Order: sequence, then C-alpha cells, then structure tokens
Amino acid sequence: MSSRTECETLDRKDPFRAHRGHFHVPEGVIYLDGNSLGLMPKSAPTRVADAISRQWGEDLITSWNTNNWFHLPRVIGDKISPLIGAGSGNVMVADTISVNLFKVLTAALALKRERKVILSDSGNFPSDLYVAQGLNRFLSDGHELKVVAPEEVASSITEDVAVVMITEVDYRTARRHDMKAITKLAHDKGCLIIWDLAHSAGAVPVDLIGADADFAVGCTYKYLNGGPGSQAFVWVHPRHHASAEPALVGWWGHARPFAFDLAWEPAPGLVRQQCGTQAILSMVALDAAIDEWADVDLLALHEKSRSLCQLFIDLVEGGCGKHGLKLAGPRDMTRRGSHVSFHCPEGYAVMQALIAAGVIGDFRAPDLIRFGFAPLYNSHVEVFDAAAALTEILDTRSWDKPEFLARKAVT
Amino acid sequence: MSSRTECETLDRKDPFRAHRGHFHVPEGVIYLDGNSLGLMPKSAPTRVADAISRQWGEDLITSWNTNNWFHLPRVIGDKISPLIGAGSGNVMVADTISVNLFKVLTAALALKRERKVILSDSGNFPSDLYVAQGLNRFLSDGHELKVVAPEEVASSITEDVAVVMITEVDYRTARRHDMKAITKLAHDKGCLIIWDLAHSAGAVPVDLIGADADFAVGCTYKYLNGGPGSQAFVWVHPRHHASAEPALVGWWGHARPFAFDLAWEPAPGLVRQQCGTQAILSMVALDAAIDEWADVDLLALHEKSRSLCQLFIDLVEGGCGKHGLKLAGPRDMTRRGSHVSFHCPEGYAVMQALIAAGVIGDFRAPDLIRFGFAPLYNSHVEVFDAAAALTEILDTRSWDKPEFLARKAVT
Repeated sequence: MSSRTECETLDRKDPFRAHRGHFHVPEGVIYLDGNSLGLMPKSAPTRVADAISRQWGEDLITSWNTNNWFHLPRVIGDKISPLIGAGSGNVMVADTISVNLFKVLTAALALKRERKVILSDSGNFPSDLYVAQGLNRFLSDGHELKVVAPEEVASSITEDVAVVMITEVDYRTARRHDMKAITKLAHDKGCLIIWDLAHSAGAVPVDLIGADADFAVGCTYKYLNGGPGSQAFVWVHPRHHASAEPALVGWWGHARPFAFDLAWEPAPGLVRQQCGTQAILSMVALDAAIDEWADVDLLALHEKSRSLCQLFIDLVEGGCGKHGLKLAGPRDMTRRGSHVSFHCPEGYAVMQALIAAGVIGDFRAPDLIRFGFAPLYNSHVEVFDAAAALTEILDTRSWDKPEFLARKAVT
Repeated sequence: MSSRTECETLDRKDPFRAHRGHFHVPEGVIYLDGNSLGLMPKSAPTRVADAISRQWGEDLITSWNTNNWFHLPRVIGDKISPLIGAGSGNVMVADTISVNLFKVLTAALALKRERKVILSDSGNFPSDLYVAQGLNRFLSDGHELKVVAPEEVASSITEDVAVVMITEVDYRTARRHDMKAITKLAHDKGCLIIWDLAHSAGAVPVDLIGADADFAVGCTYKYLNGGPGSQAFVWVHPRHHASAEPALVGWWGHARPFAFDLAWEPAPGLVRQQCGTQAILSMVALDAAIDEWADVDLLALHEKSRSLCQLFIDLVEGGCGKHGLKLAGPRDMTRRGSHVSFHCPEGYAVMQALIAAGVIGDFRAPDLIRFGFAPLYNSHVEVFDAAAALTEILDTRSWDKPEFLARKAVT
C-alpha cells in the first residue's frame, strides 16, 4: 500500500499541479464531490462581477452584441468540443440535460418514425429515463421505453429499436460503456444513438466523432466546474445538422430570429437546437470555468484519474475490508469513469461522519458511498487522507459516538 | 403639452421615487428598454457575489440545502405570485418561456385529446408560435396551429379548439387582450387557455385567479429586472395541479427525486412542472430583483405606467406629428401595456440616432420604434427629455449628418 510520502512524490510530479491553484479549496476540506458540483474556479467571481456590474449594469441591452451574450452558447460549446472529440461547430451550450435530451430524443424519433422502441439501461441516470417516459405518456401512440441491465444493452439492440439512449459512465458504479462498440452495434441495426456524457466530460477522454455517435448531451457543473446548475451541452453529428428537428423549438433556433416571422423555419445547422434566451450570468461563470481546460492533455488527465481511483480502491480495500465494504463497478480501470463507489453497510451514517470530518463525498441509495476524483485538482495526498479518515470512522464507528450525535443535534 | 417643470412636479409626487434609487442608471442614459432587459438592481452584485464566493466556493454542495438552492424555483415563484394574481403555491420559476410554454401546452393538449386546434394570434410573440409549430411538426397527427388577427381571437374560439394560447400584451403595439373576457369565451367552448405574460408582469396588474385562467408563463428579465436571460415563470391553476402532465419532465419533478426510481412518477402538485437543475447564479440575481417588489402597490404602479405612456404619446404626437409618426395600438390606456411604439419612417436610423444621444429604446421590424416605460423607476422627466430628443432628431434628421455618420463609422 502507498504511504503518504509516496503520494506527496506523485503530487510533485502531477502535470496538473498548477491547475489546482486555480480553484478555491475551502480550508480543512477534501472535496470529492466532483459528481454533483465542482470546485469554484478562482476566476469566476471576477468574471461574473464584470458581467453584472459592467455588462448588465452599464452596457445593458447592447451587451447582447458588444459583450457577446448572443454567441455564448456556441463560443462555450466550441471550447468544450476538444474535451469530447466533438469536432468544431457541433456543440452548443444551453438549457439543462433533460431539456437537451428531450430535443435530440424527439429529433431522433422523428428520423425513425417507423420504429417505436427507445432502448436504455438501468444504469442510466433516472432523469434520462423520465424524459423518455414523460414523452411516451404524452404521445400515447405505442412508443415504448425498454430498460435492460447495462450488460444486456448490446444484445438488446434489435431492428425495432429507434433510438439507443444511454449514459456512458454509470452515476453510481462508474461502469463505462464501450462507446465505439455500442454505437456500431446500434448503427448495424439501423438505430440512432444518444450518449449522455454527464459523468464523462472532464473525467475521461471522449471521442464522439471517432465513435461515429449521432447525438450527445452532458452537464457542465460536475468535472467541468461550471457552477451550480450551469447550462448543459448538446452535440449533434454534422450529418444530422440539417435533418434533426427537435419537437421543442424557439426563436433562438429560427433561421432569421430578428425577422419575427410568424412561421417557424429552423436555422440550417446546429443552431436550431437552441430554443429560448439563456441565463447569462450562470453562463459567464461557466465560460470562466471552461477556460481552465484550454491546455489540458486529456490522455494525461485520464492517467491521473486512473491513478487517483486505483489508489483509493487499494487503500480502502486494504484498510476497510473487514467492515464489509464492496467495490461497485468493474476493476478494469479503462472501463471506469473518475468516481469510486463502495457498497457500505450503514453507508448513509458513514458518509455523514466523513463529511463532518471534512471529507465531502455523497451517498446514493440504497447503500453506496461515492467519491468523485476530479483529476484537474484532486491530489494523491487527498486520496490518502480521505481513505485514512474513512478507515478511522469505520474502525471507531464514530457515527455512533455521543460526541458525533451531539454535534449533529446542533447543526 | 406638459412642460419639463410640470414633469418634475409629477416626479416629486411619484410614490415609487425611492425605488428608482435602488437601480443603477448609467450616467447620461435614459433607459427605455424595459422590454428586453431591465436595469440592474443595486443589490444584485452583492447577492450574486455571495452566491459565488461563499455559497458555491465555501459551502459547495451543501448549499442545495443550507443556502436554499433546491427551493429557489418555488421561493421566487411565491414572491412573483402577488404581481400576477396567482394565489399562493401556484408559480414556479425555471427554464425559459419557450420551455415552460411547451410544458403547459403539451399538458393542456393531453387534457383535450379529442381536439386538435391550437388557437393563437398574429400579435403573439413569434417564438410562442414556433413552440406550437415545432410540436405539431413532430406530432404529424393533425394538430394544427390557427393564427388569426388579435381582434379576431374572440370570434375564432370554437368547439374544435383545444387550447387558446395568446400573449396578453402585444410586444409591438402594447395592445392588451381582455384576459377575463377571453378566458370566459374559451371556457364556454370547452377550451383551455394559456396566457403569456411576458410584457405584463411588472408592467400592468394581472389577476390570473380572478380571470379563472388555466395556465400562464412569463419572463422575468423585462419589467421584473431579473437580469440577462433570467429564468421564466410558469403558473398552473390549482384545479390542474394534479392532472396537468407535461410531455417534458425530469427528476426535479419526480414524486421522490432522491429515491432514484427507474419509473417516472409525477410529483403530486405544481412541482411536476420542474424538470432539470436550474442555473443558480442567475436565479440568485433574479431573487434579489424580485425582492424590490415586496411592497409595490400594483394599482398605483399601473396609474404611473399610464401617466408615463400618455405623456410620451402626447409629447411625441405634439412635437413630431409632421414627420409621419403614427401611434401603434389603441389609445385607450386601459387597453395597453407599459410600452409605446410608433410607426416611424426610417425608424431604424432614427433609433440608432436616439441611442447615440443616450435614449435607449429599440426597433422592431418593419418600422416600429419602441419605448418601454418601467413604472418602478422611469420618471416623467425622462419621458419629457426622451420625447425632446426624438423631436430634435426628427427635426434635424441628425442620422443623415456627417458627424453622426462619422461617429457610427468608428463604433
């Protein structure tokens, strides 16, 4: 097992060491919740203050042009492109994952009108399933969502499937689908495929063009550090730009928005996936965050992610094995995302005790304690200290101790 | 015609005089573009800075609970309620107008499956029409959008109409529909009705419960000063809370979001109209702006709005009549919203010249110059000075002068 000194040595050689300094880490906190909200980039307060006081306060309505507000969805989209192998001009940032998924799901279904099945898996984030189920309830025309186990996706792709809609990295187990292989299987059966990259973007290298995918969506508030609820992205393969028509449209996606035509006419390309006016202040924070990624080598980032995750698995299994913890997801690091979850008896209480000790992960029902390792700023020493804290908590059952219960009672 | 001194007298008696001091007015600017982006409340920079540096930077993921992020959609919704006669617990703030309109339009259509016609009018903001047209193109099942002239809406409500979907105040002419009368006509024919309050909220008193409307949407970045692209609101009459099922759903609208069930089950009430995670930084700015409305007397506000609009109409018609300007919309001030537009030959150039002179209105094709009077902070003196500037520009045709063209060339 690695020693803390060995971890310090690894951190000194960390190619992303300078990046850590660009983020605000609260005093006394080991933050392992990249899954739900990444750390704040130190550039964000200044950038947003400028967007409020100068751009909104002084420049007012002219900012749509002079401060580039109109173009932020595509400007930020282009900055995200290299992180997901998207090609240039194929990514747009707007709305939420659910809204974007709805857009591309309806666009895909409209391209496959003769088929009625949407295929997904039980490892998908439930909200994605809700999007399909809500749509099907409304349509009431025989459209059906088929949910299989993640390992059954490949064999369940049949010629009645219109759209395969899955998340690359499982939000609980970190199990990672083989994007290229599943995309090929889908195309072989004449299906379209939508990838949700919520737990992939900024965590593992993604190659949408290389995999020849059709559509993708993803969020920006996890490993991309865009801020609370920052806008999601949507990707459309260029071969679908002119044919993919979402059911949900609006004036930002019109061919000539300022002509105020009464008739809808989709813009010729990706822009038609835009809908309404975006919340700009949040988008400016996101823009600041994405600028942190300009020079990031994704292969080196992935190497560090695997190193952090493997170290945590080794330390926890070495130190806490006797407490009944069980790793979720595969052991092969190339088939995982950048978080690690353990099935843990009394997991909810354990996570509460960890958080009280300054190690912030989260709990996912029924019994998972989850730790996200953001390779851009988490260090090996943090991993070591987090594992040590977890070991101590489990060894002492500190969540049962009067001092912990007393502390909980007042907070 | 009023003199500037008379305007000063009116401003001294303005019951909202103190409110003006709560907004940042850029030096040398008369801002009459409440239509597109209201002035910045002076409280916004501090509130948002706290949301970034403390709530995001320090408190991180715990802010969803400790800083109330989870509840902002309903907290802000409840603050908006009195402005639109919404009743308590019926308004939610999230997403954009287009997205919210799509939710309630699909919910309404699902409640009226036997009917296929959506009725709207040519005075609606085009994006609302696009929402219906995009949906119909996707459905391809005989659903049809019927667009009539605004004055023909009443007579076009027939028993084949599923949903009447109109905007109360016309974005160009300020013509205001009779909400109560049209809602009654719709109900008499068994139709549901959706009101878009984009140019109403914060400009004119609205009484959704009094009018017995079914659904409403509206934006917050105009007269409510929520900031660029701040989230929209959606209102659902309590009688529809449990039956209105949007086609677009997501995990924030689930009955038990943190159970991560694979099956969609709508929350029992209004909450099901929520979908994905909201852009919180923008929402915090909006929350600050809405706090400006806590003590506003809407009838007094409407009286001031009418006073500002009437004064502007009188001054412009008195001073610029010979230049071919023609008032758009009705003369009866009770049938208008809080903006004034004139058909104006060479309107685009005239507005450019006005903006260069510090009077910010906007231009809407083909020939309208539009001025929004935000009764919370615009003054009678501003109206006087704006009309004087317009008169001078038209008298001198300043947009044709070499000094204006030279200035334009360098900006």
